[in-house]
Amino acid sequence: MQFFSQQTISELNKHYRTHLINSLSGFKSANLIGSQDQQGQTNLAIVSSVFHLGAHPPLVGMIMRPHSVPRHTFENILATQCYTINQVNSDIYQQAHQTSARYEKNESEFAATGLTVEYLNDFGAPFVAQSRLKYAVKLVEHQHLAVNNTELVIGEITDLYVAGAALQDDGFIDLTRIGTVAVSGLDSYHLTTQIARLPYAKK
Amino acid sequence: MQFFSQQTISELNKHYRTHLINSLSGFKSANLIGSQDQQGQTNLAIVSSVFHLGAHPPLVGMIMRPHSVPRHTFENILATQCYTINQVNSDIYQQAHQTSARYEKNESEFAATGLTVEYLNDFGAPFVAQSRLKYAVKLVEHQHLAVNNTELVIGEITDLYVAGAALQDDGFIDLTRIGTVAVSGLDSYHLTTQIARLPYAKK
Repeated sequence: MQFFSQQTISELNKHYRTHLINSLSGFKSANLIGSQDQQGQTNLAIVSSVFHLGAHPPLVGMIMRPHSVPRHTFENILATQCYTINQVNSDIYQQAHQTSARYEKNESEFAATGLTVEYLNDFGAPFVAQSRLKYAVKLVEHQHLAVNNTELVIGEITDLYVAGAALQDDGFIDLTRIGTVAVSGLDSYHLTTQIARLPYAKK
Repeated sequence: MQFFSQQTISELNKHYRTHLINSLSGFKSANLIGSQDQQGQTNLAIVSSVFHLGAHPPLVGMIMRPHSVPRHTFENILATQCYTINQVNSDIYQQAHQTSARYEKNESEFAATGLTVEYLNDFGAPFVAQSRLKYAVKLVEHQHLAVNNTELVIGEITDLYVAGAALQDDGFIDLTRIGTVAVSGLDSYHLTTQIARLPYAKK
């Protein structure tokens, strides 16, 4: 085993440390956040920090860094109180990654990357047509995390769209059937193979 | 595409809805949280909500449900202000899953599941010997999320231990080399294969 003490970590160069620390949490979800401002200017941002918060009510959380790239997304969410979450699959992971470039506010990442805007059921934020699992989210609350100047954004899942082949009889969605990717570190994209589903654990 | 409206989701039976909503965030990390109380009674709990919060300083977040199974872990963290995070690999995913059974406070999930307690460098919480990427974490803060009665727990990463073969020249850790698993839904475990690492995105 290789050992890094707190002291060693603090002395690493910035890029090495960014790669290292980003690898520690394990595999991350890959999602595109669709949003628009009140004039209808669309925005799309890849986020690897979307996490399940609860099923009753159906809630989803994510961490935003408003002082770095996805600031337009956060501003749009505050302005319109809604956004979409679109899972990234292996057919679009390169375009999804490209949304992290520093586009201006008046440039849509949809147009810049070749992903297609889709409006569904009059929801006030754009979906990604190429995504096979996507849902509409209404902002519930956001909390500033003073510890490192990030924002925890919590939303309620409303409309859900999923490619039918992935949906199992018990409600589980087989993400391997729709090519959903996982992220590790800052920039590594992965397909997965299922080892097993395990039964509810009992003593 | 199959469509579920907010109304439809609200009317699903509880188990179906739990599986469905747990599938929406995408692939999740699989980590074992090691902790102990002030008398040294150890506890181990699988958590799929560990997420990267920042690299400068090195911070990690997780969501705990203190009113369901991992309550002993949360109590221990409050009492000792520290814990360990141990990535789950494909050799131990079954034991890791088994830690989610409702063991009593005086039963250690280490003993119950056959995972091995390891103390490293005098840190005040137990590691999992079988894990190939693990780190010591000091509690920074916790925030109650009133929206669904969960706790956001934020910690600072101190000592880090990683199997040397996985560490790349730029600090990226290749999780495929140490068999780290990803979770989807409540109970599905996955190995991954890397598609690609992509360069920093520029306009």
